[in-house]
Amino acid sequence: MKKFVNDPKAFVPEMLEGLALANPDTLTYVPEYNLIMRADSPRNDKVSIVQGSGSGHEPAHVMAVGKGMLDAACPGDVFAAPPMDYVYETAKRLASDKGVLLLVNNYTGDRMAFDMGKEMADADGVRTELLFINDDVAVKDSLYTIGRRGVAGNFFVIKAVGAASEEGADLDECIRIGKKVNDVTRTMGVALTACTPPAKGSPLFELADDEIEMGVGIHGEPGRERKKIAPADAIVDELLDAIVGDLPYSSGDRVALMVNGLGGTPISELYILFRRAHQRLADQGITVARSYVNEYCTSLDMAGASITLVKLDDEIERLLQAPAEIGNRIF
Amino acid sequence: MKKFVNDPKAFVPEMLEGLALANPDTLTYVPEYNLIMRADSPRNDKVSIVQGSGSGHEPAHVMAVGKGMLDAACPGDVFAAPPMDYVYETAKRLASDKGVLLLVNNYTGDRMAFDMGKEMADADGVRTELLFINDDVAVKDSLYTIGRRGVAGNFFVIKAVGAASEEGADLDECIRIGKKVNDVTRTMGVALTACTPPAKGSPLFELADDEIEMGVGIHGEPGRERKKIAPADAIVDELLDAIVGDLPYSSGDRVALMVNGLGGTPISELYILFRRAHQRLADQGITVARSYVNEYCTSLDMAGASITLVKLDDEIERLLQAPAEIGNRIF
Repeated sequence: MKKFVNDPKAFVPEMLEGLALANPDTLTYVPEYNLIMRADSPRNDKVSIVQGSGSGHEPAHVMAVGKGMLDAACPGDVFAAPPMDYVYETAKRLASDKGVLLLVNNYTGDRMAFDMGKEMADADGVRTELLFINDDVAVKDSLYTIGRRGVAGNFFVIKAVGAASEEGADLDECIRIGKKVNDVTRTMGVALTACTPPAKGSPLFELADDEIEMGVGIHGEPGRERKKIAPADAIVDELLDAIVGDLPYSSGDRVALMVNGLGGTPISELYILFRRAHQRLADQGITVARSYVNEYCTSLDMAGASITLVKLDDEIERLLQAPAEIGNRIF
Repeated sequence: MKKFVNDPKAFVPEMLEGLALANPDTLTYVPEYNLIMRADSPRNDKVSIVQGSGSGHEPAHVMAVGKGMLDAACPGDVFAAPPMDYVYETAKRLASDKGVLLLVNNYTGDRMAFDMGKEMADADGVRTELLFINDDVAVKDSLYTIGRRGVAGNFFVIKAVGAASEEGADLDECIRIGKKVNDVTRTMGVALTACTPPAKGSPLFELADDEIEMGVGIHGEPGRERKKIAPADAIVDELLDAIVGDLPYSSGDRVALMVNGLGGTPISELYILFRRAHQRLADQGITVARSYVNEYCTSLDMAGASITLVKLDDEIERLLQAPAEIGNRIF
């Protein structure tokens, strides 16, 4: 294993400590619960927006905490749901008069932790609601999922409910907006290589030198098909056909287009994918009104990418445009 | 080779086309010269800030074009200096009453292209000046360099002169600021793996499964030592000792600290490095006043990282804080 790591057991806490040191004025780290929260949260005039998930998907979700985005994130260990008491303690600390919205990517382990954490918080009188995200079109059920997986499209749900909550939207309104964005968001990914969890020290699965996994999950779950590697444009076409046909997105639609790197792929290659996706959507009469090319939801060091489309209307587009800040900044 | 690529010869133009499609309102792409420029440049009330270099270091430098950063970038092919006529044509198109500042990382090929490109522009009456960047402390001379290499510290020179030029600084003042920042900036990197140029299709050099290259260059040039992989903290300590001792940075200094990913390393690991660097600097009485953890200057898909320190004074800190925009955005 070739990684920058000390003790694999300390991978997550050391990362979180680094994140907090890099953002001393804006983020607070609570080591007992892997909790990263905004220094100015909770606020009683604002719904608190919280996401938990396994670690290993950075910048999701601990680095998506900031103004106009998450109020807090409570990750579990690498590829493991946070324990229910982390969820409970996080909800308690983020308690606001306007309530707490817990965003959960649709994995069985995460749902269980959040269902129970919510129940414990409710028993304490903390008003919480759950919102599940399931944007991955690749497979119907998966290794760790009943129903579709939640992947990079999650960013758009966070962005929209984060913006709405800053504007003072109440909990019901935040839920309405989050569900609406999730309903018009679709993603599919592809792996060129497997990822290596620090504690395992070897790749999670094997891919031959000339093979790719179409529809891979962000924990290395199998996708639709293992096949021979193809030119970038052909890979984009296959991903995009699956995504566009699913909602479906149609001629005349305005969309947000995201090309998300899975951790080990350089940004140069992501723009080569973006170019083809943009061209192919234009050919179908679909207008890319907002562009996202970066790492948003990764799978450790996996080489690969995912494509996400969001069908825009005036409300969603306005919320996506609203100002926002996050922990992993450029400047 | 496992990459998202079509024809390796089209790697750079397809990437640039994607970048322009993702930024239709702010960037202009001139395919004849690999030129990416701000849609609102040149402006006669502003020095035009231009960088050229080989490609393969993205987001440097084509994705660093934007308000408060570069006015334009004219990259060469992967790991190849831009041809002199690209430099010349870029200088001509960016000509402003206040002049054109050409930023050049110190590599022999780049210096040659920019010396000649400047001469051609001067002959046309375009006022241009050159500024060389050489922040890498690893080696005195290198494969492609007489003197020190220019690497990720380049970001800070761009940021500072970009901000100064927006404020109306003249060409001499931009040069003064750029040299001043370069003089207090030091970087050293480490490779865990080699990178694979698309046209070559195989790794540029070989590293055993348990080896790292301390002081590696961003084109895979040899560093100070090839050694056994060590815990993350030990790697940081070695890099930081070389950097801190070089200027030297001393107790009482305020610094900007950058942990830069080389392309294939996930951001989670970069924060583990940042944590240790921050702690070790604190132990030495050096205050990290500004933090940068991301990819700034990469080497294709190389797994690895570099650490950069900039010694701050009020002027540099103010320029680093100024608002700025770039092509590869998060939001």
